[in-house]
Amino acid sequence: MFKARIRMEVLRELVEVIATLVPEAKLSISKDGISVKAVDPSHVAMLVVTLNKGGFEEFTGEPTEIGIDIEKFKEILRLSKPGDLIDLQFDGGKNRLIVKVGKVTRHMSVVDPAGIAEPKVPNVSPPGIAVVKMEELRQGIRGTESISDHVTLALDPEGFTMHSEGETDQVDMHLGKDGLGKLEAREPVKSMYPLDFFSNMVKSITSSTEVTLHVGNEYPLKIEFTLANGKGGGQFLLAPRVEED
Amino acid sequence: MFKARIRMEVLRELVEVIATLVPEAKLSISKDGISVKAVDPSHVAMLVVTLNKGGFEEFTGEPTEIGIDIEKFKEILRLSKPGDLIDLQFDGGKNRLIVKVGKVTRHMSVVDPAGIAEPKVPNVSPPGIAVVKMEELRQGIRGTESISDHVTLALDPEGFTMHSEGETDQVDMHLGKDGLGKLEAREPVKSMYPLDFFSNMVKSITSSTEVTLHVGNEYPLKIEFTLANGKGGGQFLLAPRVEED
Amino acid sequence: MFKARIRMEVLRELVEVIATLVPEAKLSISKDGISVKAVDPSHVAMLVVTLNKGGFEEFTGEPTEIGIDIEKFKEILRLSKPGDLIDLQFDGGKNRLIVKVGKVTRHMSVVDPAGIAEPKVPNVSPPGIAVVKMEELRQGIRGTESISDHVTLALDPEGFTMHSEGETDQVDMHLGKDGLGKLEAREPVKSMYPLDFFSNMVKSITSSTEVTLHVGNEYPLKIEFTLANGKGGGQFLLAPRVEED
Repeated sequence: MFKARIRMEVLRELVEVIATLVPEAKLSISKDGISVKAVDPSHVAMLVVTLNKGGFEEFTGEPTEIGIDIEKFKEILRLSKPGDLIDLQFDGGKNRLIVKVGKVTRHMSVVDPAGIAEPKVPNVSPPGIAVVKMEELRQGIRGTESISDHVTLALDPEGFTMHSEGETDQVDMHLGKDGLGKLEAREPVKSMYPLDFFSNMVKSITSSTEVTLHVGNEYPLKIEFTLANGKGGGQFLLAPRVEED
Repeated sequence: MFKARIRMEVLRELVEVIATLVPEAKLSISKDGISVKAVDPSHVAMLVVTLNKGGFEEFTGEPTEIGIDIEKFKEILRLSKPGDLIDLQFDGGKNRLIVKVGKVTRHMSVVDPAGIAEPKVPNVSPPGIAVVKMEELRQGIRGTESISDHVTLALDPEGFTMHSEGETDQVDMHLGKDGLGKLEAREPVKSMYPLDFFSNMVKSITSSTEVTLHVGNEYPLKIEFTLANGKGGGQFLLAPRVEED
Repeated sequence: MFKARIRMEVLRELVEVIATLVPEAKLSISKDGISVKAVDPSHVAMLVVTLNKGGFEEFTGEPTEIGIDIEKFKEILRLSKPGDLIDLQFDGGKNRLIVKVGKVTRHMSVVDPAGIAEPKVPNVSPPGIAVVKMEELRQGIRGTESISDHVTLALDPEGFTMHSEGETDQVDMHLGKDGLGKLEAREPVKSMYPLDFFSNMVKSITSSTEVTLHVGNEYPLKIEFTLANGKGGGQFLLAPRVEED
């Protein structure tokens, strides 16, 4: 059984984060909240995200799994406006998720969770860590997008750099250590990542003012973020692209 | 002869209402105002709309008919902004409608009204009546649009329900009698209608905060609305779609 | 050498004005500011535009020429928001223009200025002159756009008229001399111009509240405008279209 009331903005961010990687996802319900693990079809990127009971306005859950179609949730979100509350209810019996926004009720068929791949998420601990302002990260990504389809993230004791190189132009964004919320980088590290994934991941995170980037040498990127004022959060993992010499 | 000055917002709503059904319309001018009757090419929907003299800022009219091209009026409206006044003048002689917005004057050719079909609008009195808030109706329609291409409207002594059913999901919006401006339904009634027409009709009504829906059993829908703070108004009729068993 | 800091809004208008005619342009730098001359590929329209040192927040220049790709500047502008400052630096050595917005730095390859055509701009002095409010000119252009692909500009001692004629409709905008900032027209003059060029030119001018139109009889149009509160400015020339009899 699962019954919850959630602010539209919180559900929207959760849905956007998941939509970055997959069109269908398995919600794992427990008495403490919900969580989702996902891997994109090309196995380049993974996501683990959790929303605690406290991130809901009301929450009652018993252990169960619900397979959801992300597009249907986007349709629900389009019925709502900021400030609205959305009610979710699932009793497992009829295999329907009942979603209410205002006076509208949708009986939504669910997807068999057994058919949805759930990744084993590896424990990844890249040695470099930087806490970066979302606003600056988004500007850096916009600057990079007209240049190339990949981006290099680098950390050293002096700060964080995004670098992108095209045939004729290059774009850099350097954030000195004083401009970072946190910086841990004893040695310089850098890796190159596919820009489309990195960009979509960052753009899907909308309520945080900063994220934590974990970077290594030709190593997976870990992006840690929070949801719902810290009542939830998660991490994206993104495989590096090996630089050609 | 016809000479009038009208607020942009009033003309825009009149044009949008007509545009729901037809690309050309016959304006019937009298000394008391103007009226339009229209039927869509597939004869599924009809419109009667009237704008009284009092809905104009200035108005002088003698009985005449003017055939107008709706798209040209939309072009005129795009030249104006809310608060603007639009002048219309027609003397019949040169077969030109002169339209002024700000410093711009358009001499607009008119369409021969004899070539424009004008329906005999039947007198339809479905037994169920509900006065519904436009805001709720619009949300219900948005919810329905992702589900199906038809919608069932139902009235009973307890309230009004919109219902839409797709292959896997269904959407309902129920408004209890306390949430309705008015409710007359001694017996339950319901009919199914094509959603595109219903949606376009409702969306074209922009200045009213509520409309009156008249519903019967497998019977045409009548939507009554007002224009220009009650200085005008009209009704849409929409043929039901017979439910397949 | 060239080093400057410029407000985003000023650079944006300069770029938009140039983009009206060409995808690449030669910036001529001097110690007093920058200037650009351009002719469109069909030789129908020309531009001379200057931005004085005073139109920059900071400016240091020695005589040099830089060939720029307009699209790359639009990408830079998309990284910025109103109120932002943009830094430009060129030392000629590496053939790179360095552009900074916020924390983002772009090393931009430049185009060989020798490969960019620069017109000899003729000295054109049409006899009629009118100073017209941009807002009215834009409304007149919007009215004209649905009618025809050319527009006739006419001046006489009574005022300024824009006239456009389609197969069925015609649109006129008449501005009496009292509504004009200035009017010099001893004799009536008029010429017809291609609307797309005229429209794009006028739309690219965003900070001025009025422009000066110079009109003759079947003669090139001159549009004089200012940039950066008068710290810059320029003129468009547009060849007339000879009316068919």
